[in-house]
Amino acid sequence: MDLTKIENPGFLKDLNNYELEQLAGEVRRFLIEKLSVTGGHLGANLGVVELTLALHRHFNSPEDKILFDVGHQSYIHKILTGRTAAFDTLRQYKGLCGFPKRSESEHDVWETGHSSTSLSAAMGMALARDMKKETHHVVPVIGDGALTGGMALEALNHIGHEKRNLTVILNDNEMSIAGNVGALHNALGRMRSAGKYRRVKDELEYILKKIPAVGGKLAHTAERVKDSMKYFMVPGMLFEEFGFTYYGPIDGHDFKDLEEHLAYATKTEGPVLLHVITQKGKGYYPAESDQKDKWHGVGPYKIDSGEKIKPADSAPAWSQVISDTVEKIAEKDERVAVITPAMILGSKLEKFQQRFPDRLFDVGIAEQHAATMAAGLATQDMKPFLAIYSTFLQRAYDQVVHDICRQNLNVVFGIDRAGLVGADGETHHGVFDIAFLRHLPNIVLMMPKDENEGQHMVHTALSYNEGPIAFRFPRGNGLGVPMDSNLKTIPIGKWDVLKQGTDAVILTFGTTIPMAMEAAKELQKQGKNIEVVNARFIKPLDEDYLHTCMQRNIPILTVEEAALAGGFGSAILEFAEENHYMPRVKRMGIPDRFVEHGSVNELLEEINLTKEQIAIEINQLLTQGKVENNRKRA
Amino acid sequence: MDLTKIENPGFLKDLNNYELEQLAGEVRRFLIEKLSVTGGHLGANLGVVELTLALHRHFNSPEDKILFDVGHQSYIHKILTGRTAAFDTLRQYKGLCGFPKRSESEHDVWETGHSSTSLSAAMGMALARDMKKETHHVVPVIGDGALTGGMALEALNHIGHEKRNLTVILNDNEMSIAGNVGALHNALGRMRSAGKYRRVKDELEYILKKIPAVGGKLAHTAERVKDSMKYFMVPGMLFEEFGFTYYGPIDGHDFKDLEEHLAYATKTEGPVLLHVITQKGKGYYPAESDQKDKWHGVGPYKIDSGEKIKPADSAPAWSQVISDTVEKIAEKDERVAVITPAMILGSKLEKFQQRFPDRLFDVGIAEQHAATMAAGLATQDMKPFLAIYSTFLQRAYDQVVHDICRQNLNVVFGIDRAGLVGADGETHHGVFDIAFLRHLPNIVLMMPKDENEGQHMVHTALSYNEGPIAFRFPRGNGLGVPMDSNLKTIPIGKWDVLKQGTDAVILTFGTTIPMAMEAAKELQKQGKNIEVVNARFIKPLDEDYLHTCMQRNIPILTVEEAALAGGFGSAILEFAEENHYMPRVKRMGIPDRFVEHGSVNELLEEINLTKEQIAIEINQLLTQGKVENNRKRA
Repeated sequence: MDLTKIENPGFLKDLNNYELEQLAGEVRRFLIEKLSVTGGHLGANLGVVELTLALHRHFNSPEDKILFDVGHQSYIHKILTGRTAAFDTLRQYKGLCGFPKRSESEHDVWETGHSSTSLSAAMGMALARDMKKETHHVVPVIGDGALTGGMALEALNHIGHEKRNLTVILNDNEMSIAGNVGALHNALGRMRSAGKYRRVKDELEYILKKIPAVGGKLAHTAERVKDSMKYFMVPGMLFEEFGFTYYGPIDGHDFKDLEEHLAYATKTEGPVLLHVITQKGKGYYPAESDQKDKWHGVGPYKIDSGEKIKPADSAPAWSQVISDTVEKIAEKDERVAVITPAMILGSKLEKFQQRFPDRLFDVGIAEQHAATMAAGLATQDMKPFLAIYSTFLQRAYDQVVHDICRQNLNVVFGIDRAGLVGADGETHHGVFDIAFLRHLPNIVLMMPKDENEGQHMVHTALSYNEGPIAFRFPRGNGLGVPMDSNLKTIPIGKWDVLKQGTDAVILTFGTTIPMAMEAAKELQKQGKNIEVVNARFIKPLDEDYLHTCMQRNIPILTVEEAALAGGFGSAILEFAEENHYMPRVKRMGIPDRFVEHGSVNELLEEINLTKEQIAIEINQLLTQGKVENNRKRA
Repeated sequence: MDLTKIENPGFLKDLNNYELEQLAGEVRRFLIEKLSVTGGHLGANLGVVELTLALHRHFNSPEDKILFDVGHQSYIHKILTGRTAAFDTLRQYKGLCGFPKRSESEHDVWETGHSSTSLSAAMGMALARDMKKETHHVVPVIGDGALTGGMALEALNHIGHEKRNLTVILNDNEMSIAGNVGALHNALGRMRSAGKYRRVKDELEYILKKIPAVGGKLAHTAERVKDSMKYFMVPGMLFEEFGFTYYGPIDGHDFKDLEEHLAYATKTEGPVLLHVITQKGKGYYPAESDQKDKWHGVGPYKIDSGEKIKPADSAPAWSQVISDTVEKIAEKDERVAVITPAMILGSKLEKFQQRFPDRLFDVGIAEQHAATMAAGLATQDMKPFLAIYSTFLQRAYDQVVHDICRQNLNVVFGIDRAGLVGADGETHHGVFDIAFLRHLPNIVLMMPKDENEGQHMVHTALSYNEGPIAFRFPRGNGLGVPMDSNLKTIPIGKWDVLKQGTDAVILTFGTTIPMAMEAAKELQKQGKNIEVVNARFIKPLDEDYLHTCMQRNIPILTVEEAALAGGFGSAILEFAEENHYMPRVKRMGIPDRFVEHGSVNELLEEINLTKEQIAIEINQLLTQGKVENNRKRA
C-alpha cells in the first residue's frame, strides 16, 4: 500500500494478520530506505514495527493514549498517523521531529527525548481519566533500559499502589542503548527464558495434586507452598511484587501473540505489564547482527552493504579525545575510575573499558546514582570521572548540589554534548548546564577552545584536589588542531587573551571562539581593534583580567552557546556589580525559549549567534559613544 | 554509665546483651530529656537505639563505613562517637548538626539530609575498597520510605548487578516520614508477616519430599517448582530478584537477633540486605502511640505528658494558608488535584486529604515521579498543584525542564520552605530555587509578601492557563495579617510599590520586605526618601516598572533571601543590559557558599542580610554620587 496515503490508524482494524505482515514489511522497507538518506534511530524503530501496528490496531488513538518512552522509536507511529510524506525532512530544520511532538499530531499525547518519563506521565493521565470518569486506555511503551531510570521505578511503585487501569508495554530488546545493565536486566532475562504460564499450567496442577494435604502445625507452611506457586506460574514475579498483573514473555514480532495478550490486558483490572520481546534492527541484516548497537542512531548509509556514509572529516571526535586522555592519565594514576550512565558508545569509552575493565562502571540509565556513586568514590580518595551528557546531567542536579558540591568532593565531570546538539533537538540541547551549575558553591566550571586545550583540561581536572570540577565540550568533532604530547595543568581561573585589542573586548569560550576571532578579523579591516579572550573558566572568573579590563573603559561583549539567563554573561554583570564597575556590556547567547532541531549552524543562525551578529553588536557598542549614567542607550 | 564519657564505640564489644539493654535504656532517657528542650528528630532516633548499638558493636567504625540515609536518625551514632556533651547545642547555631557531618567526626563518613543517597554512596565506597584491595565493610542504613526514592532503586539495581560485598540495613518502621506509600511498602508488609526461613525449613523439606519424582515431559516443570520454593523460603524475594541475599525480618529491638544476622551478613559474599523491623518512637509512650508521625521532628515538649511547648504565635502557618486556599478553590474547580511527595503533614494537607481523598496523591519520597505525574495530569486539562519543598524540588529539576517547561504545561508549583529554613541547616535551605528555575523558558515564578497575598497567588496560579507557574513561600508562620475573604487574581508580571521614594529604590520580595520597609523608615528619619517595591514576580519581571525606574537615574538595591549567583538581582542586571540601561545596582542575598544551621535570624545576621545592612548599602549607593562611565566606584 501507499504509506503516504495513511491519515490515521483506523484502517488497521480491517487488516488480517497476513495483511499486517505485508504492511510491516513495507514499513520496514520504507524506514531502511528513508533513513539511509536522512539518518535517524533505525535500530529501535525496526524492532517495534509489529508492536506499533498491533497497538494502533487494538487501541483507538488518540482517545486511548499511547506514550512512547524516550520516543526515538515513534517513527512507525508517525507513519500511521499521517506523517509519512514528511520523512524526507526527518530531524532536519523545520522538518519532522525525531521524537513525539504534540504540535505535529493529536496522536502525540506526550513528548519525550529523555528516558523513563512515560510511566509517570501515564499515571497522571490515568488519574485524570478516573477523576473525569472516562474509560479510555493509557498505554505507555517503555524499553528495558529506560526501566532502570529511578523515575520509572518510582512510578512502578506508585502505579502498583494505586491499582488504576494502565497497560504498560515493556519493550524488551535486551539492548537498551547498548547492552543493558543491572539486576533488573538479569531478572528480565530469567523471565524471558521462563516460558509461558498457560503452557505449563496443566502440568503444574498435576504436580500440585501430589502434594499431600497437611493439617495442624504444617497447614501454614503448606499454604505458603501453594502461594509460592504463583511465582512459578507467573514468571514476572518482580512485577507482580510491584502490584502488576504480568503477561509474558510475548513475541513482539508475532501479531497473533501480540493481539491475544493485548486482549487479555484490556480485560484485566488494575495495572498490567505486557512483557514484549523484540529484536532491535529486525529485518535489516546489518542492524540485526549488530551486537554493539552501532545502529542505534545512525547517519546516512548504503542500504546494500550497511556501510556508513561518513563525511570526510579527519578531526577526532571530542568524546574520543576526552576519553583517550582519561585513559592516558589512568595508566599512571590508579585512583582514576570512569562512570557512565549507559553511554559507553556515545562517550567513546570502549577502548577505556577494554583497557581498564575494573575501573569503568556503566550503571545503566541512572544519572542520579552515577553522580552520587562518584561522590562515594571521592570520599575514599579515588578520582571519579563522570562522563555524562549535559542534557542528562539535568537528572542529577540535586546529587550535584547536595552530595557533591555541598560535601566539596573531588568529582570530575566531563560534560559532553554541551551547547546545541543539532538533529536531536530541544530535548537534547545542552544549553542549561552553565545556568544550573554556576550558582553552586565550590564547583569549578571550564570549557576548552579546542581539543588540545580539552586534553589539558582533563589533566587539570584530574589533578585538582580542592573540590568538584567540570568541563563542558560540544557534540561532534574537534577542530583538527595539533595535539601537544605532554599534558599541562591550566591555572584555575586563568583566561587566555587570544588577540589583544584596544577598542572593545569579546569574552567567550568553547565553540563560539572561532566566530569571535573571525568577527574580530573582519572588524580589524574596518580599523577596529578588538580584543578576544578565551574565557575558559566560567567559574571562577579570571578576576585579575576582569579588573584590568573593566578599568580600561572599553565595551565588553560576552558570547556563549548557552542560555543567557543566569549564564556566563550574567556572571560578568555580577562581577561588575560586586566590584562597583559600570562597564557597557552586551551579552549574546541562547534566548529564553526552547530551540528546536536542525543543523547546529541553522540553529545558530536562527538565534543570531553568528560572526556577523558579533560584528554588528561590537559596532553598536562602539557607536554608542560615551554613556550617560543611568540613561537609556541607543 | 556516663554517656558523656564515651569517646568511641570500641567499648561496646565488651558488653553483653543485658548490659546493652541497660545502655539502650540510658540512651533513650538521654534523648527524651535532651530533645524535650532542644527539639529534634525524636521518633526516628528512638526507633534505632538497639540497631545503632548493635551496628557499632559488630562493625569497626570508622574503618568499616556506616552511612545513615537521610541522617536525622544519627543521634545515637553521635553519642557513641564522642559527641554526647554537645547535645545541648543540637541543631543550634554553631552547635551540633542534626545530620551526619564530616567535619564533626571521622565516624561521619557520608553527609546526608536528603533521602535515598546512601546506597549509591555506599556502592562508590565499596568499589573504592575493592580497587584498593581493602576488605572493610560498607553498611548503609536506609529506611523503608527512602527506599522508594528513584535514586535508591537505581542503586539497588546496580548493586545487584555488581555483586560487591555490601551490607544494606533496611530500617523498616512502616512509617517513613508518615504512613508509607507504594507497592514496595506492600511487599515489605508481606515480608514482615512471612516468618523466618529457618523456622520453616524443616517443615518445607518434609513437604517437598512428598512431591513425586517426575521425568520426561514433566521434568522441566518439576524443576521449576523446586526453583520456585526459593521464593517461599526467602520472604525477601523482591530483593533476591534484585540480586541481594535477604535476611529477615529481624527484630530491631532484640540484640540477639540483630547480632546473629549481622554475623550471617558479614559471612555472606556479595550484597546482603538485612530487613530490620523497628518501631519509631520506641520507649516513649506519646511517640510510640503516634499514628500520624507527629513525633517525627519536634520542638520542645513536656516529658511527662508529651504536650508540645509551643511559642505563643497566633499567625497561621504558611503551609496551612496555602493548603486551605487550594482546598477552597478545589471546592469549585473539580480539575484541581494535589500531589505531595510524602509530605502530607509537612505541607499541612491532612484537611485537604480528608475533604478530597480522591484528589490528593501522596506518591511517597519520589519527587521526580511527582513532577512528571503532574505534567501527565496537565496534558488532560487537570489543574495539578505540586506541593513540594524548595530543597526537594532540586530532585525534579530535569522533570521541570524537560517535561513541564518544555511542553509548557499548566502545572502549579507550591514551593514550600523557600529561603533559609533554620535548624535543619545546609541540606534543607531552599536557596537555589530562583537560580535553577529562572533560566527555564515558559515558567512564571512568584513570591508573596504575606499570607494574604499568598492566598491570592494560589488563586492566580490555579487560574493561569498559559504554562507552568510557581510561587515560593517560607518555612514557619505568616505575619498575622488580615485575610481578604475574596480571592483575587494578581496580574502576571505586575509588581507593587509599597512605599514611593525619590532617592533610591529597593526591589525585594517575600521575607525580606519587612526589613526593607524598616530600613526605609529609618532612612526617612535621615531625610532619605527610599522607594520600596514588592517585586513579587521574579519571572517575568515588571518591565513597565523597570523601564520607568531605570529612567529615573537613581540607584537600585535588590534584596533576596536566595543565592545571589543567577538570582533575582542578576535578572535586574540582565534587564538593564538588554535594554541598554546602565543603572547603579547593588545586590544583596545569599553568598556563594553553603550556609549551616541555626535560627533564621542568626543566619541572616551571619550573611549580612539585615535591615541595618540594607541601610548601609543604600547610604553607600547614595554617597557614591554621579558615576563616571566604566570607572570603578568607591
